Amino acid sequence: MIIFMINKLIRKIEKNKAPIVIGLDPMLSYIPEQVKEKAFREKGENLLGAAEAIWQFNKAIIDATYDLIPAVKPQIAMYEQFGIEGLIAFKKTVEYCKEKDLVVIGDIKRGDIGSTSEAYATGHLGKVTIGGKSFYGFDEDFVTVNPYLGSDGIVPFINVCKEEKKGLFILVKTSNPSSGEFQDQLVGERPLYELVGEKVASWGEMHLGDSYSYIGAVVGATYPEMGKALRKIMPKNYILVPGYGAQGGKAEDLAPYFNKDGLGAIVSSSRGIIAAYKQAQYEKFGPTAYADASRQAVIDMREDIMGALTRK
Amino acid sequence: MIIFMINKLIRKIEKNKAPIVIGLDPMLSYIPEQVKEKAFREKGENLLGAAEAIWQFNKAIIDATYDLIPAVKPQIAMYEQFGIEGLIAFKKTVEYCKEKDLVVIGDIKRGDIGSTSEAYATGHLGKVTIGGKSFYGFDEDFVTVNPYLGSDGIVPFINVCKEEKKGLFILVKTSNPSSGEFQDQLVGERPLYELVGEKVASWGEMHLGDSYSYIGAVVGATYPEMGKALRKIMPKNYILVPGYGAQGGKAEDLAPYFNKDGLGAIVSSSRGIIAAYKQAQYEKFGPTAYADASRQAVIDMREDIMGALTRK
Repeated sequence: MIIFMINKLIRKIEKNKAPIVIGLDPMLSYIPEQVKEKAFREKGENLLGAAEAIWQFNKAIIDATYDLIPAVKPQIAMYEQFGIEGLIAFKKTVEYCKEKDLVVIGDIKRGDIGSTSEAYATGHLGKVTIGGKSFYGFDEDFVTVNPYLGSDGIVPFINVCKEEKKGLFILVKTSNPSSGEFQDQLVGERPLYELVGEKVASWGEMHLGDSYSYIGAVVGATYPEMGKALRKIMPKNYILVPGYGAQGGKAEDLAPYFNKDGLGAIVSSSRGIIAAYKQAQYEKFGPTAYADASRQAVIDMREDIMGALTRK
Repeated sequence: MIIFMINKLIRKIEKNKAPIVIGLDPMLSYIPEQVKEKAFREKGENLLGAAEAIWQFNKAIIDATYDLIPAVKPQIAMYEQFGIEGLIAFKKTVEYCKEKDLVVIGDIKRGDIGSTSEAYATGHLGKVTIGGKSFYGFDEDFVTVNPYLGSDGIVPFINVCKEEKKGLFILVKTSNPSSGEFQDQLVGERPLYELVGEKVASWGEMHLGDSYSYIGAVVGATYPEMGKALRKIMPKNYILVPGYGAQGGKAEDLAPYFNKDGLGAIVSSSRGIIAAYKQAQYEKFGPTAYADASRQAVIDMREDIMGALTRK
């Protein structure tokens, strides 16, 4: 029997004692020279070679960390910038992570009017029907979506999730510095992001897995006070928390994003993990052992976060 | 000398007396059987065959209409639902339209935090540098973007536009029924979409082509009163107006979206043009002459809109 991905995600978080997700957002500048040189030699110093370098870089990091983590979050923009070749690397990455039994959160931040959202949902979570047969496009387990267009942009995603037993993380309060420009605007006495949070909570209540909803939210680690308020508003929604590490979010700030059951949130780190070998702390690994540096960074991140949760 | 795409767009609108853009949003159900059968026979009844059908369908419509119109707006979701193969059809469509000297508005509605928006902007409007050489990913002329993440999600797009002399249409008020859920929320005494509109106006003033800014806005045809208010708030921003025709927007409602110079807006129609042969009005063309039906629908749309503007 196929179980809801949210249940699988929670089981894996509990088993690994790791409410963390690695953001697979490779920039060419993160990739060690020897990986790029090999890829360029084999495929050419062009889009194909760059995509090969990204894929080889990802593969080594996944191989070195998959037993420690429940999930990965590839950021599609980092692949899309290399056009078709980049998106082929994205697809290969998604497939490989699924082979390793990782839950894959496609960080795609799509969102459009009804029929168009339906097409995005089909392409990333569902299947398209051609001549009576079904075909998956990118086939992630979860995707992130943008709420600016309202319910009729979100519901097509929810419908596909229900059908496929997959899930969403809807942007509520993002981690970037100017997220407040529109998200924090007061509507009556409350900020817009709380209104969006309430909507996410109501969608969540209607779409439950075993203990949590398969409709989750994105709330940046860089705004812990807002995280606390949103945790209350959305008790049954899993919260995907970007912004830990390189963007400035600290482990102590993360406790309010979790529920008393120790669940309810999953913290994402990208650069801090995949480019760990470039940090002073992991310099000793050097660029050739970059994947080992990533493994150590995962162990340290897990300890940092689990420590902060225990002290809560 | 390369001119700003907004100047090219305006020149073409004036030359063709057609402030209209065809939305190339092909659904398999729009494509006549003979086109699908041929594509499936040649490429298989699978994602590749579906993508081939879409491409052949688009190509015939472009060939039949390119001399009448200034621009096309392919909706990437409709391609993305067929995975990599669909996106290859998107890229071929973009390239072919550019060969025909059409301005291409990629309806991608992307938007993310700074570095990620930069990657999207690079992939769709700019070029990526690999080993000292530059490569374009999808290379549209304009793209649509989502403002929910605020300035630092938009500015990377603007920077690439400035460099490449391209442009944006930022979502302000969308055409869908539930667009009001968040966009219409009152901030103080004014709806959120007006705040977004003001922001778009201020970005626009700083980034001008000859007579209009290369930073435009999306305002749905289905909300003419709001279109009128937003026209005043954003005098120098071109407004992309979806929702005409199949979504319910009428030509008489469109006058307020235009300035007194007869410019300032471009009206989009998708289904009404590309699936014209399925409408009672164009039934006489039949499915084999579907591209001729599209041509007639463009002529009628132009007349409908220019008539309403003249009566204004």
